[in-house]
Amino acid sequence: MDILNLPTYTIHLGDLRESAGDWLRRQNYPKVAVLVDENTEQHCLPVFLKKTGLADFHLIRIEAGEPHKNIGTCQTIWSRMMESGLDRRSLLINLGGGVIGDMGGFCAATFKRGMDFVQVPTTLLSQVDASVGGKLGIDFMQVKNSIGVFRDPAAVFIDPDFLKTLPYRELRSGFAEMIKHALIADEAQWQKMSRLQDLAGLDWSPYILHSLRIKQSIVEADPFERGIRKALNFGHTIGHAIEGHALESAHPLLHGEAIAVGMVAESYLSHRKLGLPLPDVEAIKAYLTRIYGAFTIEKSSYPDYLALMHQDKKNENGQILFSLIHPVGNAVVNVACEPEDIEAALDYFLM
Amino acid sequence: MDILNLPTYTIHLGDLRESAGDWLRRQNYPKVAVLVDENTEQHCLPVFLKKTGLADFHLIRIEAGEPHKNIGTCQTIWSRMMESGLDRRSLLINLGGGVIGDMGGFCAATFKRGMDFVQVPTTLLSQVDASVGGKLGIDFMQVKNSIGVFRDPAAVFIDPDFLKTLPYRELRSGFAEMIKHALIADEAQWQKMSRLQDLAGLDWSPYILHSLRIKQSIVEADPFERGIRKALNFGHTIGHAIEGHALESAHPLLHGEAIAVGMVAESYLSHRKLGLPLPDVEAIKAYLTRIYGAFTIEKSSYPDYLALMHQDKKNENGQILFSLIHPVGNAVVNVACEPEDIEAALDYFLM
Repeated sequence: MDILNLPTYTIHLGDLRESAGDWLRRQNYPKVAVLVDENTEQHCLPVFLKKTGLADFHLIRIEAGEPHKNIGTCQTIWSRMMESGLDRRSLLINLGGGVIGDMGGFCAATFKRGMDFVQVPTTLLSQVDASVGGKLGIDFMQVKNSIGVFRDPAAVFIDPDFLKTLPYRELRSGFAEMIKHALIADEAQWQKMSRLQDLAGLDWSPYILHSLRIKQSIVEADPFERGIRKALNFGHTIGHAIEGHALESAHPLLHGEAIAVGMVAESYLSHRKLGLPLPDVEAIKAYLTRIYGAFTIEKSSYPDYLALMHQDKKNENGQILFSLIHPVGNAVVNVACEPEDIEAALDYFLM
Repeated sequence: MDILNLPTYTIHLGDLRESAGDWLRRQNYPKVAVLVDENTEQHCLPVFLKKTGLADFHLIRIEAGEPHKNIGTCQTIWSRMMESGLDRRSLLINLGGGVIGDMGGFCAATFKRGMDFVQVPTTLLSQVDASVGGKLGIDFMQVKNSIGVFRDPAAVFIDPDFLKTLPYRELRSGFAEMIKHALIADEAQWQKMSRLQDLAGLDWSPYILHSLRIKQSIVEADPFERGIRKALNFGHTIGHAIEGHALESAHPLLHGEAIAVGMVAESYLSHRKLGLPLPDVEAIKAYLTRIYGAFTIEKSSYPDYLALMHQDKKNENGQILFSLIHPVGNAVVNVACEPEDIEAALDYFLM
């Protein structure tokens, strides 16, 4: 069992039998609800219940997927919480990926002005990305996470066992955030990861732990994203726009797949605006293309992407601000880029 | 100008010319939006603009009234904020009564995970009640303020000038919270207030200041309502249920009018559960009846009231918990009452 102690809560990485079960018995919440979607109800809930011994709880089920991460689904969750008689002393367990964690956390943080919740992330992406930092929220008007709050969970329980049933595309999606952590903070880790050929058979625990430690050090330095925490947005300004746009299409992208595109384009922006050497950009592009394949964006969609980027939370005074890298392993935040820079970066991705 | 310094912000009580105008110029927010309803747009916005000199802002207008304090109206507000290009460095000015302040504050606190807002309360109720404490939220499933967060405003500006255009019923509604503050914390102030014959011609400033100071001392002792802050809920457990129920009727009650009923019934509960002398209860009933008239509740609605009380945020473990008084000027929190106690208290009100 690996333990990461954050200022207000603890992340437990290892078998749930040795973590969540004891914790739940110790805390002894009068009422507990578990939030799932149809996938985690089938694949994760039986494992969770068996390992923790939790027997007495209210089940709240929502539909899986980013398109449901909206205020309508929040109303469903709040209604079920209300009907189940939850109060401020109750606990909500969010069992699932990023959508469940972000939205369930938001619903708990706003229900009766705030009740406890724990995160049990079941995808690689949510294990490395959503476990640290207390960012909660939903999508609104096509803009990712545009409504939300900062609030820490009571605890986080990460069990790599859940990754065994995860489709390869989902693993790959989480891997993108781990690559990002290396690119913004640890050049040696990037060199190590970029030699990984096969994600399928990997022992993920040490990689998850390394990623969590990077994210922890960044978030602790800047919990409310006033400065250096924006480093975590590398790849996300363009990536979120592509993800938001693809949401509406017949071929939605997973978060990490969109972020991989964003990292290629924003590495090129790092070259153009900061002087990141072109061979480094080429190496990033080559590796990410090998893992994520050749996803294509349409030049005709550039105006839509730019419109979405204008809604990015990091923006100030109407300027689109980027979190870039230079050199590899070091982040530079608040880099204002003009539409022509951004279009050049998208062109570079398409090259 | 009276100034109350709270830990994270300041309340300015006096002419806006000497407070908000300077403050806005000093803060120099890149973008400012003002939230109004059709009433405050007509009666308060011209005064606010003239006194502060604010010229460059986005206007967001919603429909007036508690029935609109819901998630649908939040979506309207968030949409307008998004369309106006507001970001985390922007400011939202909530110009209006409790609905505007609670809901506008909630929307600002959750927009892009939180931007600044200031409260400019224009009703007596919101001036004495909503200025201190950072409680924000909306009604959901007939339950008042059941979705929300705690977050402090950047500043509060109270100008008693706004009270000049306020209907008498609204003045009376705010007066109920001021009486509550006296009953839970200051017996001498209760004696003084209970001799007031005419609310219409009153110089409100010293009473507002006194009320704010009581609320400030209670909230600072317990910002997240874990203990003594619950004292502020005196009259509100029954009052909220009556208010929520009346919302659906042809004769909705103003908040303070419902709280006045609640205070009569809960004074009787204080007698029954704690031994508050009956003459004190009679004096409270007599004065409140004189000010608020003989509002009638229906015995047939008792089950509805009880169902609503079961949703109260203060409840724990399924028990309905009350904040009562004994003696006058002192609060006792977390008093569990049974349905038969509550029905007896409602019967006492009807006697």
